[in-house]
Formats: sequence, C-alpha cells, structure tokens
Amino acid sequence: MKAQDIDRRAGISLVEQVVALILRRMAQRQLAPGARLPSIRGLAESLGVSRSTVVEAYDRLVAEGAIHSRRGAGFFVGDRLPPLSLAELAPRREREVDPLWLTRQALESDHYRLRPGCGWLPAEWMPHEEIRRGLRQLARRSGAVASLTDYASPQGLQALRQVLAHRLTERGVEAAPSQILLTESGTQAIDLLCRFLLEPGDRVLVDDPCYFNFHALLRAHRVKVVGVPFSPAGPDLSRLAEALEQHRPRLYITNSGLHNPTGASLSLAVAHRVLRLAERHDLLIIEDDIFADFEHQASPRLAALDGLERVIQVGSFSKTLSASVRCGYIAIRPEWFEELVDLKLATSFGASALSAELVFQLVREGAYRRHLNVLRTRLADAMGQVMPRLRSAGLEPWVEPSAGLFLWTRLPAGLCAKDVARAALDEDLVLAPGEVFSPETANSHYLRFNVAQSLDDDVFRALDRAMERAARGGD
Amino acid sequence: MKAQDIDRRAGISLVEQVVALILRRMAQRQLAPGARLPSIRGLAESLGVSRSTVVEAYDRLVAEGAIHSRRGAGFFVGDRLPPLSLAELAPRREREVDPLWLTRQALESDHYRLRPGCGWLPAEWMPHEEIRRGLRQLARRSGAVASLTDYASPQGLQALRQVLAHRLTERGVEAAPSQILLTESGTQAIDLLCRFLLEPGDRVLVDDPCYFNFHALLRAHRVKVVGVPFSPAGPDLSRLAEALEQHRPRLYITNSGLHNPTGASLSLAVAHRVLRLAERHDLLIIEDDIFADFEHQASPRLAALDGLERVIQVGSFSKTLSASVRCGYIAIRPEWFEELVDLKLATSFGASALSAELVFQLVREGAYRRHLNVLRTRLADAMGQVMPRLRSAGLEPWVEPSAGLFLWTRLPAGLCAKDVARAALDEDLVLAPGEVFSPETANSHYLRFNVAQSLDDDVFRALDRAMERAARGGD
Repeated sequence: MKAQDIDRRAGISLVEQVVALILRRMAQRQLAPGARLPSIRGLAESLGVSRSTVVEAYDRLVAEGAIHSRRGAGFFVGDRLPPLSLAELAPRREREVDPLWLTRQALESDHYRLRPGCGWLPAEWMPHEEIRRGLRQLARRSGAVASLTDYASPQGLQALRQVLAHRLTERGVEAAPSQILLTESGTQAIDLLCRFLLEPGDRVLVDDPCYFNFHALLRAHRVKVVGVPFSPAGPDLSRLAEALEQHRPRLYITNSGLHNPTGASLSLAVAHRVLRLAERHDLLIIEDDIFADFEHQASPRLAALDGLERVIQVGSFSKTLSASVRCGYIAIRPEWFEELVDLKLATSFGASALSAELVFQLVREGAYRRHLNVLRTRLADAMGQVMPRLRSAGLEPWVEPSAGLFLWTRLPAGLCAKDVARAALDEDLVLAPGEVFSPETANSHYLRFNVAQSLDDDVFRALDRAMERAARGGD
Repeated sequence: MKAQDIDRRAGISLVEQVVALILRRMAQRQLAPGARLPSIRGLAESLGVSRSTVVEAYDRLVAEGAIHSRRGAGFFVGDRLPPLSLAELAPRREREVDPLWLTRQALESDHYRLRPGCGWLPAEWMPHEEIRRGLRQLARRSGAVASLTDYASPQGLQALRQVLAHRLTERGVEAAPSQILLTESGTQAIDLLCRFLLEPGDRVLVDDPCYFNFHALLRAHRVKVVGVPFSPAGPDLSRLAEALEQHRPRLYITNSGLHNPTGASLSLAVAHRVLRLAERHDLLIIEDDIFADFEHQASPRLAALDGLERVIQVGSFSKTLSASVRCGYIAIRPEWFEELVDLKLATSFGASALSAELVFQLVREGAYRRHLNVLRTRLADAMGQVMPRLRSAGLEPWVEPSAGLFLWTRLPAGLCAKDVARAALDEDLVLAPGEVFSPETANSHYLRFNVAQSLDDDVFRALDRAMERAARGGD
C-alpha cells in the first residue's frame, strides 16, 4: 500500500480513510479471504499515519466483521467477502464521469432531455414500421408456433445463422452457419467469450480509448485490463508490441470498423501487423463488429484476414435495428463451437427465439437493407451538419470518420472534459467525457458526440454555456 | 492422483489414459498454469504404470504444447490453458446421461419424437392466441415506440416490476418494485447472482437431486458443489446441518415449491429450520421459484419467512407463458439492488424491453391468470392419467406432487435409469435418468417424467420396450 492512497482532504477522518482503503483492497481481492493484514506498525509507517489511527481502523473493521484478530498472530481478512461491487473494483472516480453512472443516466431517458453523449440512435430513427410489420407477421401464423413459446435451439435459429453466414462472407469473413452462435446481444456475446477464454488474473488488452463498458465487463471477470493507445488507423503498433512483451495478455478486444468512441477504422496495413503480433505472442482477439452495418464500404476486418483462426467476431442488431429485440452473434473457429454452446446453455439456457425470428423476417425480406440505406444517408447528413457546428464551438474532431454515429472531438486548450460534462448536466445535457473511455490515461480533453443526437440547436446552446461555466471554474 | 483414475479397459492405451488424466487435471485447474507436474517416477508409482508409460505421455503432452520441460527441473504446465470446457470440468459420464447432452437433444426438437424427459410443456399447451394478441397490440401503437427499439431501463419495465411486486406480496413475499430487477430469464438471474455472490473456490449447496443445470452453471463459476439429500418436505435437515459444518458454504440454491425434479414442496417446519441454520452459518439462499404459478395453493416460501434478508428469490415466465419471450426477475434486499443493476448492465446491458412489454400486457389484462387456471386443471388431469400408467409399468412415484409437471419415479429393482434411458433412445424416446440430477450419489434408480409430455400411448409402449431391453442388459 502506498502513502498516496490516503487522501488528506478535510472532512474524512484518517481512520475512515484507512478503513475504506482496507475494504477497497478486499473488494479488489488484493487482500484475499484469510490473508494476513499488514502489521500495525508497518501500515502506519507506509501510510504516514500514527499507529493509533491504524489500531482504531482495525478495531472498527473487527467490529464490522470484515477482519478478525488471532492472538499473537495479527489481523486477518474474514472468510466472507462482501458481494462483488464493480464500483469498488474500479478506480475511484467522480460520479459524473463514472461510466456506469453515465450509462444509467442515458438509459433512464426521462432524466435529461439532450443526450449527445449516449451511444445509440434516437428512437425516431429506428425502423418502427418494419418491426410492427414483423410482429404482425409473427402474430398471423396459425397453430402452435414453436418460436412464440418454446426454448430456442441451442445454437439459435438456423435460418438466421445462414443469413448471417452469408452476410459475413460478403464482408470477407468466411464463416459457415455451423460456426455462428446466436446470443441475446453483443454484450452477452463478449461476456460469454470472456468466460470461455479467461481466467481471473489474466491480462486483457483494450484500446485506449475504448467502449467504456469493456472496462466494467472485464472487471466483472476479475482480469487486469491494459490499454493500448489508439491511432487513426488502429492500435499504435509499437505500443501494442510493448504491451504484448510486458504483460503477455491472453486476449485483445477491439472494434475494427468505426471504432467506439473515435469513429476511426482499421487500415489494412495495421490489421496485417496486428495479426502478425498476435500470432507471435499467442494472443486471441475478439473483434466487436457492431457498427459494421453503418459503413458505406466495408473497411478491413481482422476476422477476414485471419480466417477466424485466432480472431472471434461478435456482432448484433442493437445499433441498427433495435436494442429491444435482443439478438447478437458470435462467429468462432469450428473446434470451439460445441464447448461454447454448452457454456451458453449452462449460463443462459439459450437466447430468445422470438427476437431471432423477428430479425430474420426483417433481414430476409430486404426491409433491413432498405432501412440501412436510409440510415447511412441520414447519418452522413448529420455528420455533415454536426462537424462544422462542433468546430465553430471550438471542438476539433480527432479524425473524420468514414461513417457511423460518433465524433471524437478535442476541447479547446485549458478545458477538461469532465468539468464540461458536469456543468452540462445543469443544462439538461448529457455528454460523454473522455475520462469515461480511458480510465487510466489522458483523454481528458475529449468528448464523444453522437451526431444523430446532436441535431437540436439546443445542444449547441447548452454546450456553449457548459463550456463557458467550466472555463470559469464552475459556479 | 490416484491409481483408480486409470481405467484398465482394453482399447485405450495406458499412455493415452495418462495424457487424458493430465489434461483433465489441467482443465479442472487442479494443475494450474506454471505448476510443476509430478515426477515421472512418482506418477508411475502412484498410478501403478511403468515409467516408460509416463515418459511417453509427458513427451506427447510436450509435443502438443500443453506442458514443457525445464532442464533439470522437471515438467511444467504451460501458460496457456485451453478454453473452459464444462465437459472436462465435470466428472466423466456417458454421453446419454450427460445433462448438457440431454438438454441439447431435448432442445433440438427434431431429434426424438417422444420427450417425457424434457423440462417444459408441449407447445400446444402454451398461450399462443394470447401471445399473438399481445404482439398485435404492440404492433398497433403508433409513433416511435421506445419499447420496440430502445434499450430497456437498467432495472427493467417499471410497470411489470410493480405487477411482480404485487404478485409476490400475494404469496407473502414483501418486495417493493425497487427491489425487483428484470432479467432475460431465470437462468440468467441465477447466473448474475452467482457472479455477484461467489468467488471461484467457494462452496455451494444444492439439493440432491436438483435441476441439472445448476451443476453446469456452478461449474462455470468454478465453485465446489455439495449435494444435500432431499426429503419430501425439503432438504434433509440433519444432512444440511452437517454440510454447513463441514463445508462452510456461501450459498444454497433450491426450489421450495414444486421442486425439480421431485415435485415435492417445502413444509413450513422445514422452511423455518432451514432459515435458522442459514442464519447460524451465515448462508445465503437463492430460492428459484419458477414453478410457483403451477401451484393451486401457495406452499411455504423461504423468501416469505425470511423477508428477503438472506434469501434472494428468482422467477420467470418460461414454464408457464413462453420460453421464447425471455423474461425473468430477481427480488433482493434493497442494500444490494444498485450493485446488482451495475453488474447486469456491465454483463448484458439490460434485458429485452419487448419481452417485458409483452409479458406485462398478458399479465395486466388477466390473460395470464386465465391461462394459468386452464393450465393447472389440465396438468392435474395429466398427473391423474400418467401416475397410474407409470405405476402399471412398475414405476413408483417417490412423492405425489400437489401440482406441476414432474413425477419422480423409482424403477423396479435391478434396473438402472441410465440403461433404460440409453435403450429408450432407440425407441425415439428421450427420458431423464436420475444420474442427470444427482451426479455424485445414488439416484440411479429414478426417472423424471413430465406428465404433459407423457400423454401419448406410444410413450408407454416405448418405455416398456426400453425397460425390457435394459433388463436383458441391452442388445
């Protein structure tokens, strides 16, 4: 334990801080059940507090049942740990830049009116008429229809898996239907794969910045997350090589096309080199491809180059069709397929047959393809409107994305994203500050904008006011 | 390692058996990455095989990259373990009595025609008309309807949570809507709770026999499962007390009403004593209540007595309404609610809003209640028909269930359930042998019948033939 872990702000007693520190170490499992705590003298010295402070803190922990003393042997962590708390496993952050908090604000849609910080399209952009038609079609079938009431087959609806195999092949990813497993969602797909591939304590690489939920998800798997700086053409290769040497990670999770939050896409050259490095270091890769359908032209995919050898691809329809009709998929090498199906059955007993049927109808009859065409044009339009407005507001895009919904923009010098985000809440505006996507390092001058959620003039008025307040140091 | 791990049947070479043994120990993490393997001499002695057999086995493992040798230091497990294989974590079993295999056969509905071994109602028994009406109602709402395309709120549809709170209160479980979290399914609910409450290596109690997927699910969490013998009034109390003393488990998972596979229900006296024991030993309990709605009269519930202090209740609509419209719930003490929501978001990003809306419609307008009335009568009818037929076939019910779909029946002396189940497959009949529900101990003379799936005369003709073949020792 390091002395700087103790925060000398007024208002919180040193005893309380020592108590909190020990509990945090326990929640993070740095102090495992049964482990011996540091001696009173040792801890007092390393924290630079008095022995009596440590004595009092330990006494309080004993009273709470968190630790116990054994005569002559010292203090020990109890056998019963508190339930897993993601918040405690995470580095401490302010509420307004906590990713889970941000997610919950954005999901509870009544809280704030303007939400350029959220990660999905406005409801009005989604294909309601097509989904209604799909629902009516499902309702029209007569007799006892298995898809309305039965468990899905373990692999998921065969017809949809065939369609997905065809679509993947169009993008250069050679996958047979027998390699495609349906899941409830892209997140559930990644979660299932993490269970399949990871052990607690493993190291996992993510992009820095990356989709913030990767951090929360990986914390739930109790692995060590290592960020690799991201460049406009993919991960920074020399930093990737360093991380591979230094941390020997098992897995790398990334978006190749229309990366979240930056909107950048992988170049062919970088893709090739990432795979060579992966091979040399025996690294597995999950390619989370949920933004694929927003692209006008498919950018390079790791899964396509690699042929699903060490790359596993994940996708879903949540961003483009519906996040309510839950349906995702995994494309994986054949040798691992059956084991993965077993694990899916054990942990969720199969995905929704109804959702899969609905998606299949929309995809088969071309409604989805037509909707995508409209969506891409509309998004390109929004991008064209929002980019200059953000520039006028002083926010410079880090890269001009080829498509998709995200713009990763740099704030004017001197402004900190979380200060702006905090000020914005008073303006009824939810922003996505860089700290959310990049907990360890420096993206604190960036904001992610969802262009489809930024077309209201009020967004820019509120943003201006929030930036002004943040520049003045808050009121 | 014990000598009896090596199977001296003809056909598999001793070298192959030693290889398989080491790989199994690695998959079960009894040999962790980097661990040193037993010496050649030591292993040869403990297995009672020649040293050259062990040398050959180790050579083969080195060639496969599973282990490596360090000059002068011996053999070591490689750093990279194969992906998690539930099959390898499990005790080895024959394919026909492997729970995952059974599940997959039953789920892949085209494989076998007669399925009294499966755990759900026939499609024709489910409320198709009501679900169709619900789908049409959803399709009729005009405008951009959030429930068709948006992510659900983190806690799930508020209106359905209110209805569930009301229904729970009717059964004596005092739960506010703010204590109820919607999930994709009952299985996903239990899985989420296991993540929330358990550490790898923890001990968890289950009933013996119990719903077979508990074993697979708990294996995926890498905990040690301890079975407690089940009596017709609930768990055997003295054996429960012993298990608590001996294993100090963190958690107990059980069904109180209409236990799976036995159909028994908890008595009030046993419920009271289970809770006293739980309190004394600081045991948490997950009460999986998915069969509640089959009951004519509610039997005692642990969650009701305990007031959701140390009992967490889980339920779903999969058995009674639809397994395709995925919707389950968790009722939990208020202090843990927010952390659990965070974990749900991190690992699945929320359940289906569409499913929740559909369930809400059916529950609100009384369609579900009317359907349940029909279902209960129909099941009581089926129970009345199937029980005497099973008795005539020589199968005696262990208990006469008060309701529900399961009958747990004892085979005539001398017959082994897995032999009968194996012979049955040739008759196009999927049975559920006792070994599936009780991997460690002796329920090998029991079969679970789903009465709703046993109304076809062919079931009994095929069963007779299978029992006859099994008695003759197979053909």
